[in-house]
Amino acid sequence: MALIVQKYGGTSVAGAERIKHVARRIAATEDKGNQVVVVVSAMGDSTDELIKLAYQVAGEPSERELDLLLSTGEIVASTLLAMALRDMGYEAISLSGAQAGIHTDSAHRRARILKVETRRVIKELEKGKIVIVAGFQGVTGEMDITTLGRGGSDTTAVALAASLGASLCQIYTDVDGVYTADPRLVPEAGPLAEIGYEEMLELATYGAKVVHPRAVELGELYHIPILVASSFSDKPGTLIHGGAPMEVRNKVTGIAHDLDVAKITVVGVPDRPGIAAAIFQPLAQAGVSIDTIVQNASIEHITDLTFTVAKGELKEAMRVVEPIARQIKARECLSDSRLGKVSIIGTGMQNTPGYAARMFAVLSERGINIQLITTSEIRITCIIDEAKVEEAVRTLHRAFELESGE
Amino acid sequence: MALIVQKYGGTSVAGAERIKHVARRIAATEDKGNQVVVVVSAMGDSTDELIKLAYQVAGEPSERELDLLLSTGEIVASTLLAMALRDMGYEAISLSGAQAGIHTDSAHRRARILKVETRRVIKELEKGKIVIVAGFQGVTGEMDITTLGRGGSDTTAVALAASLGASLCQIYTDVDGVYTADPRLVPEAGPLAEIGYEEMLELATYGAKVVHPRAVELGELYHIPILVASSFSDKPGTLIHGGAPMEVRNKVTGIAHDLDVAKITVVGVPDRPGIAAAIFQPLAQAGVSIDTIVQNASIEHITDLTFTVAKGELKEAMRVVEPIARQIKARECLSDSRLGKVSIIGTGMQNTPGYAARMFAVLSERGINIQLITTSEIRITCIIDEAKVEEAVRTLHRAFELESGE
Repeated sequence: MALIVQKYGGTSVAGAERIKHVARRIAATEDKGNQVVVVVSAMGDSTDELIKLAYQVAGEPSERELDLLLSTGEIVASTLLAMALRDMGYEAISLSGAQAGIHTDSAHRRARILKVETRRVIKELEKGKIVIVAGFQGVTGEMDITTLGRGGSDTTAVALAASLGASLCQIYTDVDGVYTADPRLVPEAGPLAEIGYEEMLELATYGAKVVHPRAVELGELYHIPILVASSFSDKPGTLIHGGAPMEVRNKVTGIAHDLDVAKITVVGVPDRPGIAAAIFQPLAQAGVSIDTIVQNASIEHITDLTFTVAKGELKEAMRVVEPIARQIKARECLSDSRLGKVSIIGTGMQNTPGYAARMFAVLSERGINIQLITTSEIRITCIIDEAKVEEAVRTLHRAFELESGE
Repeated sequence: MALIVQKYGGTSVAGAERIKHVARRIAATEDKGNQVVVVVSAMGDSTDELIKLAYQVAGEPSERELDLLLSTGEIVASTLLAMALRDMGYEAISLSGAQAGIHTDSAHRRARILKVETRRVIKELEKGKIVIVAGFQGVTGEMDITTLGRGGSDTTAVALAASLGASLCQIYTDVDGVYTADPRLVPEAGPLAEIGYEEMLELATYGAKVVHPRAVELGELYHIPILVASSFSDKPGTLIHGGAPMEVRNKVTGIAHDLDVAKITVVGVPDRPGIAAAIFQPLAQAGVSIDTIVQNASIEHITDLTFTVAKGELKEAMRVVEPIARQIKARECLSDSRLGKVSIIGTGMQNTPGYAARMFAVLSERGINIQLITTSEIRITCIIDEAKVEEAVRTLHRAFELESGE
């Protein structure tokens, strides 16, 4: 008898009919002789509605209160799912994050799971019950309710799978799996049958929104295979796991992109120790997340320092950086908010030269100018004009032969 | 510095504007130098909406799941109220029933409070915070969430007031207080300045819906004065307390009525021991609540047994009683569902004869036929034709000089 943890996203439980549909899927999993723990997100846009209410009563709602407020959304979905299962004749029980023993630190809105106290979940499983857990939430040592921030329900699911020793964590969403590229941009893109944790992390971080990197990291750490599949179809989905693929059919696994990129260049910076810290420490203090940083080779002790931020943070970043630029006697401060990122990702690239060169050649042939380049062992990212991102993704998808056979 | 517990009902917090209005009232109470604990119900018809959702996914939703589902309604209202107060610059924190230490038995949908573990509430009060508690809910020893059933939030408020040693429990609702009679029936009816617990219990049980008898009982038991007033006005409201009124201005305090009365008469019952049990035990087992029972004086060992039930339970009651009537060889079983109840209530009647006679005379003068009479020490109730209830209430209100001076 295998123990499986399933997670259903908000669109999968938006409305009574979809909840009943999900209940039938869960029941079918149990019918196959599995023990099932289910993690569920809030129904459809119910979280947004709660946030709207909060901003109607307060200009800046307390984070602690917001967490307690938002936690109700997942509880509503869990109880309804448990009721639907019981109505079908299955033993089921719903548990809030606190009841399910999801203990977190007290960083409201972005809490981290400290431990999972599985006693209650195990007790209910032993009674033969399907256990439905409200995702996205936990409880502090002082019994305060927290939410886990982005990717919270995915993280709840993988954390439960790890703590319970589940054989598999299935993340059900509204897409058929992890695609070789965003199918809205690339019609030939198709779901991958499998992908390594590392590759998935790069894909997830660099623009694929299917499963949150935080959950993938946790899966990697605890060796939990994660299946990403659609709750609306019976397609096989994508298995994220640590085993090397049996046959490396293609060394590039997928193309990721991101349109939310702005660039700041501090031009003519005197190249001496402490300059980078002088710029980036105040940015960190102002809460601006820096993505890529590139420093040109220094010519006569003068260099250019370029970095990227999310578009929404450009104004704040410029507000912080401009006075510093004057102070360190840089020549000027330039910004560009019309940028995007495109990345090719694949573990196969690791020990094989030539991928970067081929990527640059493909983009160049299309007349796409590369503004910045960053790489990891299994990823090459080019920052380009946002208007060219779509064309770049399509062209790279074709060039690296990722077209789906389907 | 006095500690005051306030309770706001669902209509008082229906929508962002009303929540902000309630927040201002709470703030004003603190501004006067009081410590304040607030108990809040779910917003407007949000509980009904959750119940509707439950019945969309399940024919007969599990009571345990329903409780966890419904508990979210009061949590939403509490967090929003705390946010609104913080936005006004007041320190406030919301607590779920579980966090506030409301421990109950595990009778879902109708749990009873076993104890209130006040540690957390006291800790927050000592930090100078206004504490907002989600009403209507509690937690079992197994950490399962329960709801308290009818009058739940009123009961939470009085239980907290008792456990915290509050000097006063203020129940804010959408009416100006406890009226001498239902103002929809009697335009001259006005709010009472004060009323005893016992009288209030009779009024509440016999048709006045302002504050739940369960909360009044608890208030009496722990000597907590309860002020019932409107959250939409600054009128003084009605103080429910145990002290004898300084001057007994009028020995009848109020007129209660109830239109939900049906009557069953088992005619020609052989009067021997065990007959009452033979009838009423099966009714109790079928879950039928019996209100009034009257047995006529026996003539030649044959008697009539009459009792009343809520109209909605008449059919089930007849289904149970008819075969029993045949079995015990009663002559026949009659029912009448077009009845109502009118009561005069007042501690002043206790040692003063003549009230019953006057009531019967007043009704008789109007040609209102009395079908059944029941009394307590401080109440006289007549069961009459439902079509005559309104006239009876008005006539009695005038006869016992309850017209408001306002």
